[in-house]
Amino acid sequence: MRFSTAAAAAIVAIASSVSSVNGFTVSSSSLSSFTSSSANNFVRRAANPRAYTQTSSSSSLNMSATPLNVGIVGATGAVGKEIVGVLEKRSFPVANLRIFGSERSAGKNVETKFGSVTVELFSEDAARECDVVFLAVDGDFSLAHAENICAGNDGAVVIDNSSAFRYKEGIPLVVPEINAEATKGKKLIANPNCTTAIGLMAVWPLHKLFGLKKMVMSTYQAASGAGQPGMDELMEGTRSVLSGERAVAENKIFAHPLPFNVIPHIDKFQDNGYTKEEMKVTWETRKICGLPDDFPVSCTAVRIPTSRAHSESIVALFDKPVDIAAARKALEEAPGVKLVDDIDNLKYPMPLTATGQYDVEVGRLRKNIAFDNALEFFVVGDQLLRGAALNAVVVAEAMVENGALQAKVAV
Amino acid sequence: MRFSTAAAAAIVAIASSVSSVNGFTVSSSSLSSFTSSSANNFVRRAANPRAYTQTSSSSSLNMSATPLNVGIVGATGAVGKEIVGVLEKRSFPVANLRIFGSERSAGKNVETKFGSVTVELFSEDAARECDVVFLAVDGDFSLAHAENICAGNDGAVVIDNSSAFRYKEGIPLVVPEINAEATKGKKLIANPNCTTAIGLMAVWPLHKLFGLKKMVMSTYQAASGAGQPGMDELMEGTRSVLSGERAVAENKIFAHPLPFNVIPHIDKFQDNGYTKEEMKVTWETRKICGLPDDFPVSCTAVRIPTSRAHSESIVALFDKPVDIAAARKALEEAPGVKLVDDIDNLKYPMPLTATGQYDVEVGRLRKNIAFDNALEFFVVGDQLLRGAALNAVVVAEAMVENGALQAKVAV
Repeated sequence: MRFSTAAAAAIVAIASSVSSVNGFTVSSSSLSSFTSSSANNFVRRAANPRAYTQTSSSSSLNMSATPLNVGIVGATGAVGKEIVGVLEKRSFPVANLRIFGSERSAGKNVETKFGSVTVELFSEDAARECDVVFLAVDGDFSLAHAENICAGNDGAVVIDNSSAFRYKEGIPLVVPEINAEATKGKKLIANPNCTTAIGLMAVWPLHKLFGLKKMVMSTYQAASGAGQPGMDELMEGTRSVLSGERAVAENKIFAHPLPFNVIPHIDKFQDNGYTKEEMKVTWETRKICGLPDDFPVSCTAVRIPTSRAHSESIVALFDKPVDIAAARKALEEAPGVKLVDDIDNLKYPMPLTATGQYDVEVGRLRKNIAFDNALEFFVVGDQLLRGAALNAVVVAEAMVENGALQAKVAV
Repeated sequence: MRFSTAAAAAIVAIASSVSSVNGFTVSSSSLSSFTSSSANNFVRRAANPRAYTQTSSSSSLNMSATPLNVGIVGATGAVGKEIVGVLEKRSFPVANLRIFGSERSAGKNVETKFGSVTVELFSEDAARECDVVFLAVDGDFSLAHAENICAGNDGAVVIDNSSAFRYKEGIPLVVPEINAEATKGKKLIANPNCTTAIGLMAVWPLHKLFGLKKMVMSTYQAASGAGQPGMDELMEGTRSVLSGERAVAENKIFAHPLPFNVIPHIDKFQDNGYTKEEMKVTWETRKICGLPDDFPVSCTAVRIPTSRAHSESIVALFDKPVDIAAARKALEEAPGVKLVDDIDNLKYPMPLTATGQYDVEVGRLRKNIAFDNALEFFVVGDQLLRGAALNAVVVAEAMVENGALQAKVAV
């Protein structure tokens, strides 16, 4: 076997339950590149989170001095669970963790590193008592409550994982390694679509070098994009087909059966023939990277039978001539990115290796042969981590660093 | 369930064994569009093969008058089995079917519509006695024997499924719906790479309309590209992971475990960073479509956990302005293509529906928003049929039509 214990743990998690990914093994090799003193600690943590969790409290962020009251709404869903896990592993300075849910989950206990937490029935007033609230719920819930939770000087900072506020002017849409500064002085932050966040981790360092001109993406998206029910449907459906119990797997979550299939349809169709998932990549790339409103990005978004890591084939056209060595160096140095591009040793990005990892894997880097000044590459990232939970927590860390998120003075 | 009996049969075949696909149900609806009198019968058969197999012998090809001695080398492999099935279903005029194999398979009996066939030990002399020989073996075997089998006036026509002769000058590389005329007067024909053949079925009608300028492709390739052992490895591996027997599936055929994974690597790496599979799409598109030697085509080829249908996301740039209505009409009328593009009813190309079908499914057709005069679309085709066996048999049919393949006069 070519895979490490950590990778094996990840694939077990793929096949059984997502929760075991929370316990992934820390590789000692990742410790070597860690430096404790940095003005950009949050970026460094994103680049090498596994290393960070192994360091002593003395080398944690400045914010260790200001523990925060943290709330999570939707903590029993796939993304919510991962947020708890990321807060734990990154030693986020949690004074008190509160978990809010519906009547169905209120009263249940969730065991965390911060103690046993009893799920409270959600109310805006209770959420407002927190310093920061992570919303891991649907867009309708966010639309109804997010602005009320953060309103006024005594409201909480809200980091919203839904698409409700992503395209609203004045509300920052943030991948912290790209535009953390957009959070300054803000109280409501939108977390981007998973596909966009994962892809831009690779595209941004190259854009800084060569100047992005156009982008074409094709995606290979995991079942986890539809949450835990999506992952369950894939696994149960695969089981039912392999056992001969069913000729074709049942589908309730996806538009068609996903096992051994490919579904070129994610989210609603738009008037231009693209899906909303595809247009999110276009819209969010423009906003996050500060590009013009008509900046040319196109995407084909496809659901495939993998569990929780999205893959993306990207052709990026640039203004300036491209240089592979410079591109590799930029990717190697980019926080949150792991260059996995050693074809002699069959190393390239794969869900098998990227699952459960904070870093987005980038590889298959080559000069595109159909366009001048263009690169072609392959990106794989954990949909629930960089695509959701990790990004949200790193946003919060960035806001602690720049003062946008502070412990409230007791009233 | 949204799927027909035929589709259900296909997915059962996906999950268990490929052989049962040979018995797929004929849909009565496909009979309606069949017309028996045509100068281009072979093209019509390619367009609507299921209909054709249901017609009486009176409506079969002109060649029914000249039954042929047909040989297959490698008939026990995944592609070879499909060639037997396609010959049966398309009522290819077989006077006598001979199957050649290695010492391991010689002496075994294969039951076919043409009678019970005992596998003969391969020899060039025996193969030369046939009128046409399909080679479903590896490139080394083809290199050693193909030219000897077809040499001289008394040799057999050889249709080779390997990559051995695809790029050799003077040897036609043929997708019959595109360049059947290249077979005229030839005795050795190369069958294209599966990915290229499937993609070009959609690209060619659009190229005729708008003039192809550049093409970018990302593939979603099935395990069957590595033959029956590849399909078996996917199924067994998936089973072993789901049962908890293994943390990560075993891999012998693929470079990494395929179940619930994505592998952005098919065939050998080239000096330019592309794989040979990716470059095949570039090289073969140029040759089959008669485009210049430097015509710009790029591809990212990716193996995913599906069984036997390849999917492709394609962005095609054209010289002329594109028109969606005209493009749809051209695809609707193109032989061998089925436009599956009714997003209101969630109809688009998928392995689930394209498996076991002769037609390549094309859908998600839209104007690309990143380039002028460009279309974006999704193509799915059965890798073993259009990607191999069907294409080879339709080549033979085209050669019967144009006189390149005739029954030899007894000596």
